[in-house]
Amino acid sequence: MAEDELVVDDEQHGSIYTETGAVRQDLLAGIEAAIAASDHDWLRQELIRLHSSELGDVIEALPPDQRLALVTLLKGDFDFAALTEVDEAIRLEIVDQLPNDQIALAVQELDSDDAVYILEDLEEEDQEEILRQLPFTERVRLRRSLDFPEETAGRRMATEFVAVPPFWTVGQTIDYMREDKDLPETFSQIFVIDPGFRLLGAVDLDRILRTQRAEKIESVMHETRHAIPVEMDQEEAAQRFERYDLLSAAVVDENDRLVGVLTIDDVVDVIQEEAEEDIKALGGVGDEELSDTTLEIARSRFIWLLMNLGTAVLASMVIGLFDATIEQMVALAILMPIVASMGGNAATQTMTVAVRALATRDIDIYNAARIIRRETLVGLLNGVMFAVLIGILAALWFDNVSLGGVIAAAMVINMLAAALAGILIPLILDKIGADPAIASGVFVTTVTDIVGFFAFLGLAAWWFALL
Amino acid sequence: MAEDELVVDDEQHGSIYTETGAVRQDLLAGIEAAIAASDHDWLRQELIRLHSSELGDVIEALPPDQRLALVTLLKGDFDFAALTEVDEAIRLEIVDQLPNDQIALAVQELDSDDAVYILEDLEEEDQEEILRQLPFTERVRLRRSLDFPEETAGRRMATEFVAVPPFWTVGQTIDYMREDKDLPETFSQIFVIDPGFRLLGAVDLDRILRTQRAEKIESVMHETRHAIPVEMDQEEAAQRFERYDLLSAAVVDENDRLVGVLTIDDVVDVIQEEAEEDIKALGGVGDEELSDTTLEIARSRFIWLLMNLGTAVLASMVIGLFDATIEQMVALAILMPIVASMGGNAATQTMTVAVRALATRDIDIYNAARIIRRETLVGLLNGVMFAVLIGILAALWFDNVSLGGVIAAAMVINMLAAALAGILIPLILDKIGADPAIASGVFVTTVTDIVGFFAFLGLAAWWFALL
Repeated sequence: MAEDELVVDDEQHGSIYTETGAVRQDLLAGIEAAIAASDHDWLRQELIRLHSSELGDVIEALPPDQRLALVTLLKGDFDFAALTEVDEAIRLEIVDQLPNDQIALAVQELDSDDAVYILEDLEEEDQEEILRQLPFTERVRLRRSLDFPEETAGRRMATEFVAVPPFWTVGQTIDYMREDKDLPETFSQIFVIDPGFRLLGAVDLDRILRTQRAEKIESVMHETRHAIPVEMDQEEAAQRFERYDLLSAAVVDENDRLVGVLTIDDVVDVIQEEAEEDIKALGGVGDEELSDTTLEIARSRFIWLLMNLGTAVLASMVIGLFDATIEQMVALAILMPIVASMGGNAATQTMTVAVRALATRDIDIYNAARIIRRETLVGLLNGVMFAVLIGILAALWFDNVSLGGVIAAAMVINMLAAALAGILIPLILDKIGADPAIASGVFVTTVTDIVGFFAFLGLAAWWFALL
Repeated sequence: MAEDELVVDDEQHGSIYTETGAVRQDLLAGIEAAIAASDHDWLRQELIRLHSSELGDVIEALPPDQRLALVTLLKGDFDFAALTEVDEAIRLEIVDQLPNDQIALAVQELDSDDAVYILEDLEEEDQEEILRQLPFTERVRLRRSLDFPEETAGRRMATEFVAVPPFWTVGQTIDYMREDKDLPETFSQIFVIDPGFRLLGAVDLDRILRTQRAEKIESVMHETRHAIPVEMDQEEAAQRFERYDLLSAAVVDENDRLVGVLTIDDVVDVIQEEAEEDIKALGGVGDEELSDTTLEIARSRFIWLLMNLGTAVLASMVIGLFDATIEQMVALAILMPIVASMGGNAATQTMTVAVRALATRDIDIYNAARIIRRETLVGLLNGVMFAVLIGILAALWFDNVSLGGVIAAAMVINMLAAALAGILIPLILDKIGADPAIASGVFVTTVTDIVGFFAFLGLAAWWFALL
């Protein structure tokens, strides 16, 4: 019955997803039943038509103990590219348990960038054993990619590309592509190289198609101003793609020789990853993934919370300085979290803007002064507004005008401190080479907590002792 | 002198940027001098070779009063596409002050998606006046795009594309492209349509180039399973691009007729925007941009801080319930922020993960139960760890074992509450159709503040009253 439903649905919108974007439960149930029955044919028939990213989603949606079973059962019909689409933990879990020779067979079918993606997480021993089983050229290519540091263009690039000499005609180039069976699966530009493999330029495919056959390639190629050095950080490469709306870019070694090609789909992944990293860092979670275990997650979050405990204890010690004052006037204890909390939130606002502006390079030493000035003003403005609000509220609540005045003054001071901490701390961290997204939070809340409690309780101690 | 430097530098790496990614100061100084001297020729010579995004960066880096002057001085040599690359506030500021007929001339040079990008922010009156000055087809095209709601595929698409009938041969298609001068500036696939403009399929350019001239288009085309409905939300469209590694996709109306094309460079912008929105929402800042004025920013942040003030006052009222207890034991006032702050941070961690998982559709009703269970366990584990730590610390600090016990119990309770609030609140908000990134923060901190203070002070009141 599940099968019938599938077919009907398939004709309607050909989707394995429900409207909310989840993998359909009837499909998953069918797959689990087929795995239980070792029904290779049914699985093959249902899954072979899927895009690798759909197959990846199916794997992620299956219960953990069914994933390896599915891969093993599908064997040669399993599209290994799907493993580049799943969480790292799931990929490792599956690949670690597969025999090396099955992996060796599979990676030969993949584009080199996908193959690297799967191999890079393996133990060096397994990696070597798999590489040894590959044909010579394949092995050399993959090994070279794997030799580049993680998160560089060289690690991310594909080593399959089309390159022709500048003196060929457009016609010759088209004929070459019609005949050569060893072309990359897809490509959107052709590179032009000299006999020493040095990059001379590139031609977009639409340009080739619009040009008469007799025309020379060198007359239609454009200089590749945006060639990516093989050692370039992937984030910088992604920014170059964005800036120049590139679809693909040549990757060149230190002698300007063409060694690979970086394509926009890899870059989209990089952009996603980098934004994700910032979001997680700002939220105080590290490199965790949904598929991580409870223990892994608890441990990685522990570190962050431990730093926060330090901050909180420091703030408590500030309160402790004023225990006698609080004893005399318990209203101070009731009101004090308000000042600290408003400062913390205002600082988080400023910090979020600063961290993003640093990440997208919208802030630099030339406009930093303007932004610092503006944030200070915003802090002052909102500080005064909330000082009035909370001042009136406190005065009415405790029927004490002086108390209203004290909390109002403390509010202005802490909102100003919040603005300065929110903008200066990320800038300083960036300057000294630390990641502002990761470290800013702790420092910033430390400042607003301490200044908040100190300003409020200190002012109160001073004022009420005077009267 | 600035000019000489420019030339030298240009030969070295042809970049207008310093190593940190900022626009070079000597270039900016040269431009300002040329604007002051109304030196159109110098500006033209220096700026015409720039990519539109580089020109956009130059505009953003100039002092505000120089921007319009530059555009006015360059006149017909100004590349309006640069305006699609700058902050909205800057774009509006410039376009608002330019005469409508200059804008009308300029948008005719642009791809339709860029033209829409510039027109959509204008007052309806100006928009109409500009549209009236355009040639008929251009006007109809742009008006149709502008009729689609913001943030839909229809608003984002370009209406220039190449489409051929299925019975043409590859050779005919190539010849057509060689002769037609009215092709889009760049394209990476050709669409196949029937006489009623209904979409039949698409062919990637590399496929055309690999195929013999005599072959029919219909035999090399692939069905476009991933055509994008014109009303589809841009975020959903972006997810489809990511999922299927698309470079471009047909946009079709409700009758399956081809009306435009969406390309990956627009999608990259959408992905960036959406991640940006989440980051800002989580940090409590709305739709602000670096170029906004102090007042605009102060006002938009005020709302968020006002909600936070409500939360903070609520938390203070909880403390107020226990004023008698605090009066007897001021150590409670000193320690109470620790419990609340740890809960707030733990909840933010969980919430960040939940909000991102919702945004990337990695969480749904089928795995929600597993994730809720896991987060609860993580909260419990870290709750116990920190209960022990803070319990010992408090007992030693105030030489009071009972106090250590009370704060430890409160810590476990609040960390559990934090985990539940952090995961359930985003899920519920998403379920009822609210944006979890925007609203979660306030609710979550409310819960952890109130539970934190109530658990700690309540337990203390109960325990120490018993003794």
